[in-house]
Amino acid sequence: MPKEGITPRDQDYSQWYLDIVRGADMADYAEVVRGCIVFKPTGYAIWEAMQRGLDDRIKATGHVNAYFPLLIPKSFLMREADHVEGFAPEVAEVTRAGGEELAEPYVIRPTSETIIGHFYAKWVRSWRDLPLLINQWANVMRWELRTRPFLRTTEFLWQEGHTVHATHDDAERETLLVLHEIYADFVEKEMALPVIKGLKTAKETFAGALRSYALEAMMQDGRALQTATSHNLGQNFAKAFDITFSDQHNSIQHAWTTSWGISTRLIGALIMAHSDDEGLIIPPRLAPTQVVVVPIYKNDAERSAVLATVERISAEWRGRLRFKVDDRDHLTPGFKYNEWELKGIPVRVEVGPKDIEKGSVAVARRDMPGKAGKSFVPQAGLLAHLEHLLAEIQQGLYDRALRFREEHTYAAANYAELKTGVERGFVRCYWAGTTEDEQRIQDETKATIRVIPLEQPDQAGTCVLTGKTTTQQVIFARAY
Amino acid sequence: MPKEGITPRDQDYSQWYLDIVRGADMADYAEVVRGCIVFKPTGYAIWEAMQRGLDDRIKATGHVNAYFPLLIPKSFLMREADHVEGFAPEVAEVTRAGGEELAEPYVIRPTSETIIGHFYAKWVRSWRDLPLLINQWANVMRWELRTRPFLRTTEFLWQEGHTVHATHDDAERETLLVLHEIYADFVEKEMALPVIKGLKTAKETFAGALRSYALEAMMQDGRALQTATSHNLGQNFAKAFDITFSDQHNSIQHAWTTSWGISTRLIGALIMAHSDDEGLIIPPRLAPTQVVVVPIYKNDAERSAVLATVERISAEWRGRLRFKVDDRDHLTPGFKYNEWELKGIPVRVEVGPKDIEKGSVAVARRDMPGKAGKSFVPQAGLLAHLEHLLAEIQQGLYDRALRFREEHTYAAANYAELKTGVERGFVRCYWAGTTEDEQRIQDETKATIRVIPLEQPDQAGTCVLTGKTTTQQVIFARAY
Repeated sequence: MPKEGITPRDQDYSQWYLDIVRGADMADYAEVVRGCIVFKPTGYAIWEAMQRGLDDRIKATGHVNAYFPLLIPKSFLMREADHVEGFAPEVAEVTRAGGEELAEPYVIRPTSETIIGHFYAKWVRSWRDLPLLINQWANVMRWELRTRPFLRTTEFLWQEGHTVHATHDDAERETLLVLHEIYADFVEKEMALPVIKGLKTAKETFAGALRSYALEAMMQDGRALQTATSHNLGQNFAKAFDITFSDQHNSIQHAWTTSWGISTRLIGALIMAHSDDEGLIIPPRLAPTQVVVVPIYKNDAERSAVLATVERISAEWRGRLRFKVDDRDHLTPGFKYNEWELKGIPVRVEVGPKDIEKGSVAVARRDMPGKAGKSFVPQAGLLAHLEHLLAEIQQGLYDRALRFREEHTYAAANYAELKTGVERGFVRCYWAGTTEDEQRIQDETKATIRVIPLEQPDQAGTCVLTGKTTTQQVIFARAY
Repeated sequence: MPKEGITPRDQDYSQWYLDIVRGADMADYAEVVRGCIVFKPTGYAIWEAMQRGLDDRIKATGHVNAYFPLLIPKSFLMREADHVEGFAPEVAEVTRAGGEELAEPYVIRPTSETIIGHFYAKWVRSWRDLPLLINQWANVMRWELRTRPFLRTTEFLWQEGHTVHATHDDAERETLLVLHEIYADFVEKEMALPVIKGLKTAKETFAGALRSYALEAMMQDGRALQTATSHNLGQNFAKAFDITFSDQHNSIQHAWTTSWGISTRLIGALIMAHSDDEGLIIPPRLAPTQVVVVPIYKNDAERSAVLATVERISAEWRGRLRFKVDDRDHLTPGFKYNEWELKGIPVRVEVGPKDIEKGSVAVARRDMPGKAGKSFVPQAGLLAHLEHLLAEIQQGLYDRALRFREEHTYAAANYAELKTGVERGFVRCYWAGTTEDEQRIQDETKATIRVIPLEQPDQAGTCVLTGKTTTQQVIFARAY
């Protein structure tokens, strides 16, 4: 039985998503600020957990954080031809400040390649300054026409890495290192979300990049969501901003740069990949609260006894798992169960007078609603049980998402099969078409080539559209 | 002998500050973006350490983080009369976005009372929703005429807490709890900087607040720097944004709100409080790197032996102290010493072939430049020695700053003494003057009442200006 206020997924997936965001109290619409949301504490705590997981990996791979200005002189955008075409139509402009009209407007950063390129040109002098490996955590703004909480908002939060290298190959290695060791490692291990790593086609490449790599994940409606991108910018921005260095032979060279980002869209991915008709489901490794304890009592005497037991059994949990005791007095246990299910806490522990008698507690798994996920567990050894259970839930969510993706990924030998496949999920097929072919398929099916997977088959096959023989497979899907 | 490139403090304090910022590679001027700086990795790492120390305390006192929009409808600023007067002249305005002129401009938040007030009015319904204890980490923008790295920049980074309470007294308790348990605790324990806690006079109260509290610290030129503020906003914003709740008797009441903030100005305070003519000095508890190890060698054989020793002795440091080994090959030890002194790393460990023979290392304290701070320490027990030394340096910096403040704080019995005192430091004196008197003193001496300290004398005395008898003492000082 679906929860009150949550539209079932199979009835209206889009409304289900909005119901989860509201039901789990993750965001509020900032209707007074076009296309913006408020990240409410429940939603923001998930972003904080994501930041920690990502920042640890960013630093472990040798990067350091810095912070560059929010405002960018509008003329900077113009310096890289593809870049301006991609971003100029969607910027917000500051034209007045301190009570005066500005001679040149600023734009609020939609992304920071240009302003960072300007500073890198000052900082980089010699090959010894390279590689320069800097990341920034920041807000960015893109004036979107259609918005959707977390998935597409005018202002969003992200990290953007910007690095400088001496050679093309160094930049390419960095681009792939970030894709594998920072992004895929985080999304798969912490978010329990399997991803397909691949290269973007020319049509889907970042405005100003040589090559864009991305991670694509499948949502529960079979559509793709790009969870991260990593761009080899070649010498495009180095030439536009004159980032040069003197090499080991004292010759002046243009540098090679990369940029890579992951944003609060991930929160949308998290919701759509794992949650169900009962509410949000957060993988235990990412969950700000992993275990909620609900005490059950009918009078003051029971209350003291139960809370004393809770205090005793949870004493050794501190530092081992993230938990909270919901001892709010004016709410029934049922109301609390409902609230924590909606908010996706992985495990609920219930302790009542009968549990005290029996020396046990009731443990309910969020990933298995109802009786299937509920068991009675001895108080002795409870911590080890919970730690094991959290690991099992983490793995279970990953396995379930992977199985779902495999069940909804179709081989297509021809265009008809492609059309049917993208109605239900991903299509993996051989591809030798042009950018125009790709556009035609998008116009006709709403599906795009999400990535050319890094893992490719050994054997050649026939292009799904042109009939040409090729060794290249791609993933077609409709995307968020 | 002062370092090359660092103007001595006693010669030109203001230039010394800029030299430290540049010499320690903490920031770059964003001359293309009015009044902004780039927080370079060395400077930003200090902000990250500050964020951790503050965020831990913010959460330990029951607050949660959230994120509200960067843009605020311009009309929102107008709703609170004092607030608009304080902030309207210095806002940056977004008037065009997505290629179109906006019907109503947005301002980039100079502070978020108004936009957050708007949402709180939607979220708060009943006394059960209170207190609402939310904090935000964000960038803000104030179009300043004269800027100075970290101390005053057009864009800066901060946290701003915004809370809602049922009564005046609850709001007042929150305002003071934040001042004591979050701000003063952090600044004194982590930054090793003694502060005077006090109330602002009406003249210096935040635009829209009932009462503003602040922490004031003394810099090495005797001037005051306000390191944090905590405001009891009374019902001013609750009335302007209609934040009401139904109380326990079902009667609708306007709520009471607070706001409080601490910003990247703190980095400026850190520099000016502790650093010397050799460069930056970072207190060990805050230092991103606490110990730097410099290996000394003349050939490959020595290099392997020394690095093997460094590897061995530092093996047990991981997780106990934050350190880095500077094994860059193309730089001399002397160059490295200079660089890490400039960057303020608290302790340097030097390991060379002779140290290997003797089973010792050389340890140099950043807070005591030259021979006074250098000693030879056995490799056995080195970790315990370093941990003890770091604690001693932390305490030593605090003690030194406190002693300096005490030596530069003067009692003043009359206006003449006040005038002399504020030339050299803080003046503590009795005060019964008006806002006009305060303004006159500012015009004549450039000094303002920094705070009315929470700690007040038992006995009455004579007002420094009016000659009236009063029990209230204040601190006058010139301020950053």
